[in-house]
Amino acid sequence: MSTLSVFMDVPLAQKLEGSLLKTYKKDDCPNKMFLAYKVCMTKKGQPWVSSVVHKIRLQIAEDPSLNYEYIPVMGMKSFIQASLELLFGKHSQVIVENRGGGVHTVGDSGAFQLGAQFLKTWRRDSQVVYIISSQKEPHGLIFQDMGFTVYEYSFWDSTQLCLDPNMLLSVAEQAPRGCVFVIGNIGNCKLTPSQWAKFMATMKSKQIFPFFDIPYQGLSTGDLEEDTRFLEYFVSQGFEFFCSQSLSKNFGIYDEGVGILVVVALNNELLLCVLSQLMNFARALWLNPPTTGARIITSILCNPALQGEWKQSLKEVAENIMMIKEKVKEKLRLLGTPGSWDHITHQNGTHSYLGLSSQQVEYLVKKKHIYVPKNGRINFTCINAYNIDYITQSINEAVLFTMDSENLQKVNDSLE
Amino acid sequence: MSTLSVFMDVPLAQKLEGSLLKTYKKDDCPNKMFLAYKVCMTKKGQPWVSSVVHKIRLQIAEDPSLNYEYIPVMGMKSFIQASLELLFGKHSQVIVENRGGGVHTVGDSGAFQLGAQFLKTWRRDSQVVYIISSQKEPHGLIFQDMGFTVYEYSFWDSTQLCLDPNMLLSVAEQAPRGCVFVIGNIGNCKLTPSQWAKFMATMKSKQIFPFFDIPYQGLSTGDLEEDTRFLEYFVSQGFEFFCSQSLSKNFGIYDEGVGILVVVALNNELLLCVLSQLMNFARALWLNPPTTGARIITSILCNPALQGEWKQSLKEVAENIMMIKEKVKEKLRLLGTPGSWDHITHQNGTHSYLGLSSQQVEYLVKKKHIYVPKNGRINFTCINAYNIDYITQSINEAVLFTMDSENLQKVNDSLE
Repeated sequence: MSTLSVFMDVPLAQKLEGSLLKTYKKDDCPNKMFLAYKVCMTKKGQPWVSSVVHKIRLQIAEDPSLNYEYIPVMGMKSFIQASLELLFGKHSQVIVENRGGGVHTVGDSGAFQLGAQFLKTWRRDSQVVYIISSQKEPHGLIFQDMGFTVYEYSFWDSTQLCLDPNMLLSVAEQAPRGCVFVIGNIGNCKLTPSQWAKFMATMKSKQIFPFFDIPYQGLSTGDLEEDTRFLEYFVSQGFEFFCSQSLSKNFGIYDEGVGILVVVALNNELLLCVLSQLMNFARALWLNPPTTGARIITSILCNPALQGEWKQSLKEVAENIMMIKEKVKEKLRLLGTPGSWDHITHQNGTHSYLGLSSQQVEYLVKKKHIYVPKNGRINFTCINAYNIDYITQSINEAVLFTMDSENLQKVNDSLE
Repeated sequence: MSTLSVFMDVPLAQKLEGSLLKTYKKDDCPNKMFLAYKVCMTKKGQPWVSSVVHKIRLQIAEDPSLNYEYIPVMGMKSFIQASLELLFGKHSQVIVENRGGGVHTVGDSGAFQLGAQFLKTWRRDSQVVYIISSQKEPHGLIFQDMGFTVYEYSFWDSTQLCLDPNMLLSVAEQAPRGCVFVIGNIGNCKLTPSQWAKFMATMKSKQIFPFFDIPYQGLSTGDLEEDTRFLEYFVSQGFEFFCSQSLSKNFGIYDEGVGILVVVALNNELLLCVLSQLMNFARALWLNPPTTGARIITSILCNPALQGEWKQSLKEVAENIMMIKEKVKEKLRLLGTPGSWDHITHQNGTHSYLGLSSQQVEYLVKKKHIYVPKNGRINFTCINAYNIDYITQSINEAVLFTMDSENLQKVNDSLE
């Protein structure tokens, strides 16, 4: 057929991510393992789901009184209210003064998309975004595609092997007035009270707009309140802000798009204006958010017994993560692996840095078929009783190998 | 507190829709009724859900082997494949030649959002969109917000009381080369073979890009194949096109965002390029589409017995719609309501025009508390054995009242 295609100028898009997983899948080695899953894994190597979720999912399916009609653009009111109380605490100023609200979004990408659209329209004079997190975040591209100038910074200091709060302070000092700070798990950074004070003073004087990312409240420390305590500092200092709150990971409902774009304003009137504008954007993006996940979560959060059960399950996950990290550190110590491995247990949450060089990571991937991202940040819940020995022995080998090759290099250099 | 709000310049957004429903909800009259629900209603006035959906929802909740991990950006492969086969038929050229594909989107708004983003980027030289449908469509705003020049046309000819295929032909003749035609339920327009030939020849010679809207395959005629037969004409003529396929209404899963942006290209290679670009947009919009609805639908479509049961439920709905329309017409005839009401039974599907003037609609809303949109297009499944008498009597009254007032006006005019 001689017809020219409408699509003849459309090239194949570059794959943005997932190449490590693809290589892993193609690998024929029976010992291969993947340590970069996004979701929390059980001791048996399955994606974790809070036990209470199974029960409620079944209850919902059995309920003949439920209807499945379209829900409002903003989402289920009860879901948003319950999630806000979880984020801030029932007695927070934000809740009591009725100046916090939210829009149910399709996952956290949806929350960033919606927030970015709002900021693009309503903060025209400042289209600069700083993304500061423990790692490279996918929402960087969302802001970039929308025409923002994006700068990305990582808390992780690969020389000192720690999350560095000073980085945050120096970035705030050099950032232009009125820009946006998208801040990932700052709670893990362990700022001192005086660092907090300094950081907030700089943000305030420069009118920097905070946009927090809360990807898994409760999975960092195992304590829901502890994980979002820092939000209260910003509330008490009179900040207005956005927050992407995802409830996928801490309930184990990864595939249902349960995110919320949270808005905190100075008063209820301002809040309603912002929410009304966000609804117009949401209407064009997806019109009605999906309900299954929201329905499950609301049923759990609104029932004290179920909520207690869920909190207990989170605590167990967090304790298990800490135990895995302790064991990894202990095994490396017993193997006599050179270096201190305290940085492993100093980090909270499922995903933490191993503190390996890119050469060491390459050794693990190529020689040992252990798939680790280039930056060495792995999901510790991928490590379990069945694979911990192979993994720690391989890390030991990688470290020794690179030391040998460095020494060899030094010898070679001195001979030249 | 003297702090100025970041949001001080953000006004309350205008409400775009839903005002009729709001007025209805505020109405205290016990006889009030709303005839404009988007979803198909049962004889008892509840949102319709295909009986087979309940069963599968329960089965899925009971299945311990399922995992709820993130699904790929493009969606569940099996869901997309089953939906494409439903749309085109298993033996369509598109399927056999592997040149049709799709991306799972959050509902049909998501499909238009995604399609519009693609066209914005890859058809830069022509940013004109014609939206041609039975009514004003919400996706007009999606294209408009993205900067397209949008023209909207309705198939409905309120003078002749019919859907007019000639309108389509004349719009195609005056439209500029290379523009986009978003075409709503054209299947209901009953074009003759020669009208089809003329329409497609004009589209082809002007390189107009078709973007079809299939909001509820099977609910127009009760026959799934019949409802999308026209797509095959475009395929056989070598057209490339997009199609928004929604599976919410024909399964009765309204709240789960089950849409697909379908792509038909001239060959597989071109298709893969287009899909890869769409995936990049989807990644920024919501990253992973929600799965509950997709999972239910796939289970039904991939099982011949369940698929048969579902088809039967669709047929029953379509038959019920036709029966309601026949009854409305018959009751108006018995009441001696002036005018021919054949146009009611000449239209297919849940939503059809009553063929009332704006004055008659106003009479129904204000005097009878029957909430009908201004254009008089109602959801016929909102009419049932309990309310049909009140509704038809009220229509009769409205027609007589406006005739009287018109006559009175004529008398007044002649006296002046």
